[in-house]
Amino acid sequence: MIPTQNNFKRGLRHKSMRRRADNVIQPKKAPDIIPPLAPETIRIVPLGGVEEVGRNMTAIEYGNDIIVVDCGIQFTDAETPGVDFILPNTKYLEERVSKIRALVITHGHLDHIGGIPYLITRLGNPPIYTREFGSLMIKKRQEEFPHLAPLNFKIVATDDKAAVALTPDLKLRFFGLTHSIPDSTGIIIETPFGDIVNTGDVRVENENGVPAAKEVAQYSIFKNRNTLLLTMDSTGIEKPGFSPSEDHILKTIDRIVAEAPGRVIIATFASQVERIIEFFKTAKRYGKKVVIEGRSMKNNVDMIKLLNLTETDHVIPVDDIEKYPGNKILMIATGGQGEEFSALMRMSNKSHKFVKLMRTDTIILSSSIIPGNEKAIAKLKDNLFRHDSKIITYLDTDVHTSGHGKRGELEWIHKQIPHHFFMPVHGHHYMLKQHAELAYLLGDPRENVIVPDNGSIIEIRDKGQTLVRLPERAPSDDVVVEGFSVGDISEVLIRDRKMLADEGFVVVVAMVHNKTGRLKKSPDIISRGFVYLRESQELLSEVRHIIKNSIEGITVGMNPINFDYAKNAVNEDVARFLFQKTAKKPIIIPVILSV
Amino acid sequence: MIPTQNNFKRGLRHKSMRRRADNVIQPKKAPDIIPPLAPETIRIVPLGGVEEVGRNMTAIEYGNDIIVVDCGIQFTDAETPGVDFILPNTKYLEERVSKIRALVITHGHLDHIGGIPYLITRLGNPPIYTREFGSLMIKKRQEEFPHLAPLNFKIVATDDKAAVALTPDLKLRFFGLTHSIPDSTGIIIETPFGDIVNTGDVRVENENGVPAAKEVAQYSIFKNRNTLLLTMDSTGIEKPGFSPSEDHILKTIDRIVAEAPGRVIIATFASQVERIIEFFKTAKRYGKKVVIEGRSMKNNVDMIKLLNLTETDHVIPVDDIEKYPGNKILMIATGGQGEEFSALMRMSNKSHKFVKLMRTDTIILSSSIIPGNEKAIAKLKDNLFRHDSKIITYLDTDVHTSGHGKRGELEWIHKQIPHHFFMPVHGHHYMLKQHAELAYLLGDPRENVIVPDNGSIIEIRDKGQTLVRLPERAPSDDVVVEGFSVGDISEVLIRDRKMLADEGFVVVVAMVHNKTGRLKKSPDIISRGFVYLRESQELLSEVRHIIKNSIEGITVGMNPINFDYAKNAVNEDVARFLFQKTAKKPIIIPVILSV
Repeated sequence: MIPTQNNFKRGLRHKSMRRRADNVIQPKKAPDIIPPLAPETIRIVPLGGVEEVGRNMTAIEYGNDIIVVDCGIQFTDAETPGVDFILPNTKYLEERVSKIRALVITHGHLDHIGGIPYLITRLGNPPIYTREFGSLMIKKRQEEFPHLAPLNFKIVATDDKAAVALTPDLKLRFFGLTHSIPDSTGIIIETPFGDIVNTGDVRVENENGVPAAKEVAQYSIFKNRNTLLLTMDSTGIEKPGFSPSEDHILKTIDRIVAEAPGRVIIATFASQVERIIEFFKTAKRYGKKVVIEGRSMKNNVDMIKLLNLTETDHVIPVDDIEKYPGNKILMIATGGQGEEFSALMRMSNKSHKFVKLMRTDTIILSSSIIPGNEKAIAKLKDNLFRHDSKIITYLDTDVHTSGHGKRGELEWIHKQIPHHFFMPVHGHHYMLKQHAELAYLLGDPRENVIVPDNGSIIEIRDKGQTLVRLPERAPSDDVVVEGFSVGDISEVLIRDRKMLADEGFVVVVAMVHNKTGRLKKSPDIISRGFVYLRESQELLSEVRHIIKNSIEGITVGMNPINFDYAKNAVNEDVARFLFQKTAKKPIIIPVILSV
Repeated sequence: MIPTQNNFKRGLRHKSMRRRADNVIQPKKAPDIIPPLAPETIRIVPLGGVEEVGRNMTAIEYGNDIIVVDCGIQFTDAETPGVDFILPNTKYLEERVSKIRALVITHGHLDHIGGIPYLITRLGNPPIYTREFGSLMIKKRQEEFPHLAPLNFKIVATDDKAAVALTPDLKLRFFGLTHSIPDSTGIIIETPFGDIVNTGDVRVENENGVPAAKEVAQYSIFKNRNTLLLTMDSTGIEKPGFSPSEDHILKTIDRIVAEAPGRVIIATFASQVERIIEFFKTAKRYGKKVVIEGRSMKNNVDMIKLLNLTETDHVIPVDDIEKYPGNKILMIATGGQGEEFSALMRMSNKSHKFVKLMRTDTIILSSSIIPGNEKAIAKLKDNLFRHDSKIITYLDTDVHTSGHGKRGELEWIHKQIPHHFFMPVHGHHYMLKQHAELAYLLGDPRENVIVPDNGSIIEIRDKGQTLVRLPERAPSDDVVVEGFSVGDISEVLIRDRKMLADEGFVVVVAMVHNKTGRLKKSPDIISRGFVYLRESQELLSEVRHIIKNSIEGITVGMNPINFDYAKNAVNEDVARFLFQKTAKKPIIIPVILSV
């Protein structure tokens, strides 16, 4: 029997069988058959962002129309090696694509707009309703996908007197609120039975827990409206009280900048656009030049210039930095999360082309730690503290506040928007659950609150009287972006990658004389990630011996030779030997060729 | 030319060459030649724990003698896939093994004792000076290494009147202090020029920032001593003020237990032995049975029983849990960090054999988040919040305090131990640097403080008058435990593992007719972790075509055939094609066999 070109397929089948014994893969259950939408019923389907922080997307369906709110990505971690982003699962929408009337964007952060290039075609290229800054962020990102059809933007403002009539039954309004990027908005979808209000991401500017006047004004519209369903950001629910105000943060940083003996380097998220605008003003106030470092920071500063959101004539290129005295320089950089090749990391490890850190430099880390980045930030801080520069973080000084309101802020918003039903969104399940508990405490009856999962189908029935969750669920398996591919996540692939990372692999290539069943020569062994081969010559020589015995023990005298038997024998014998010798379990792949 | 059995070596060389272009590996520099120790000079060499949190070890050398303090491990993360633990590098000690007189242990946590099974033989099996609880922790761990020689323990107490004379010049004393495990101690090494004091890990029990009377008493011995060098834990330096007291935590938990309507399940670190002892007392007080879940928790409870540290006659096995009413059950479990197969995780995901969570259960997470565990803990909390049990964490209630003192506590200890020189230890470099800044603020002259790195050689010269750091460094490359192997970390191996995790591999096996240079049959392709092969038949068929053209383009008409040329061609052509098609860069390994 001559091994065929389908070798790899058999290998895969064999392997996955072996592994199934260790770690059972659940068979996928058949997709639910979702009942058609009844008349006078509003359906709400969160497709992402309610079992995680990221990939926000919610569908609102009524009659023959669907409005999609937000289209975000989620960043990945060590649990999904090799994956670039995770997207909401849009199968429910794809099956109803002719009903989609609009994609509505609350603000221009990637967890709200990042999925557009991958998904807009699947949504049938609907018009995108967004405020101006969001549209610029979307356009900028779209430049990386030149093959896509141009987007159809409908730019809206919060002060539009009339609502946008998306369909005869559904109207859209934007309302201003506070987050951390310009043109952050909440959305009101007017239905025949009342408003569906989505805050998007939200915080409340405040002075020691007293909301600012502009906040009170922003929410005053809800006094005279009929909010049928409120959905709200839950990211900050675990933290009690109110955040320090952005105003307080800016004053603190202003004072540091004013008193700094030399250069000031501020690292913050490029997404903190409103704060960055204030840094420009601070630099202007003290006669300092501004240097922008980091690609995403430069991109967002381009938007600031384009919209003329502040004076930017004091920006200088980084290679001019030596032309000015240190105390005339304010640098705004990315890299506060310890990103490997970011501007700040390069300064910290002395590989930045133009900036060498000095004793007189003041470095402000105007950001908190995003969960998962702790190790990278520890590395960054280690590097920074190897210099004699002054380093200021949010741990010792108020130089950062989150764009997501804490519990006290969320509570205040609840009270500003009287509502009939409530659905917490934007966060892990445990955050949503705690947000629901807050709603009960504030008086929402339990039957008027639903904590959704991705794919939950929630309906408001009886002309707005009852809130139900269907037993059926919209498809919600992770959809992943990996290189050019967008599709279902493969559990097999992810598990192989984790095994490869921990144990490595060993490929055994042996040529067997078809007639004698003997090896033509000593087998070849190819391995990566298992042990350091240069120091393991003896081990390899023993393995070759085992392979020879293992194969010939099966094949000599066998006619015709059953190569699958021989492969199984090699696999088992080599795995057992290597585990005895090393306590490791590399993926073993035997290739036996007949000659 | 027939490919030899050294194929794998050439493959490796070729590969590492290709990669070197992308990401230069630094050649290892020759080890420093370390000058001999001069007379009347004390040398201190931190070998671990001063560029990280973990693997603590410090050598103190005087005359012909070396005392080693602690022998810890560090846990690994995604930066070192496949590695089990990281150890301190002990080459400096191995080269001076005949001078080692003692291994001294401050307390029984793994970052202080975990390295013993791997390193004690390399240190020449010196006697181990430890208090009783530490000795039990070490013995328990040693049971997993039955091939090792028995350990030579010298059990010491803090109330020993006389110091232990380790050598004519060096005496050892232990002093009591507060951490989170019984028998936590500081160490005093008496030298001819004064004491070297090592606090080990330390916190200060306090009431709203006022240290408890027992703390004042514990440190009173230093009033009349001459401390030459103080070395101290820096782990908590970034957090201002004092921690909530353990007493306050215990009172809070006591109240929760007293008021709970049903079962109470407390998850904490098994290493929090002192707190666990108090939980036994709480259960006794309210007539509750105690259930212990988790292997490390059971191990540590065995120690508590062995030393009779509290009454334990109310412990029942978990399978008896249903025999008692819920409000008579207090469970102490591991798993607060979201460990995959821990007791609490199994309860949370409904796979625990005996415990199904209920509405009346109260679950207390009496631990904070260890950096790096955020995602696992989010998963755990998601699972827990899917039940209706009451869940209490340190975020909303004071149910945990750290064993590492915050800045205020460290400041207080500085003042209790008047000292000539100071060296911060136990923490990342940025923590040590901040701890040094605290010392300056408290009046230590800059020249009397050194912030060490792993392998720094620090000397106290001129009969205790001057503190210097040599330009030479002891070997400090990471030493890793991986299965049965203990040795240098291989950068090549780690990088291969990361590439395999992100990109996977493709092995190409082709047989070439030696005479014609043509492929005998279509090549075999073996791949894991790259793309989901079952859905990539077309891609594979195109790759086979490319391989054939690539090889035959070189080999047809060539005599003798240069197989290395052919391999390089396949490697380049396949890599380019796959990148164009998928935007991924798998490790490609061509195996070309001549027949």
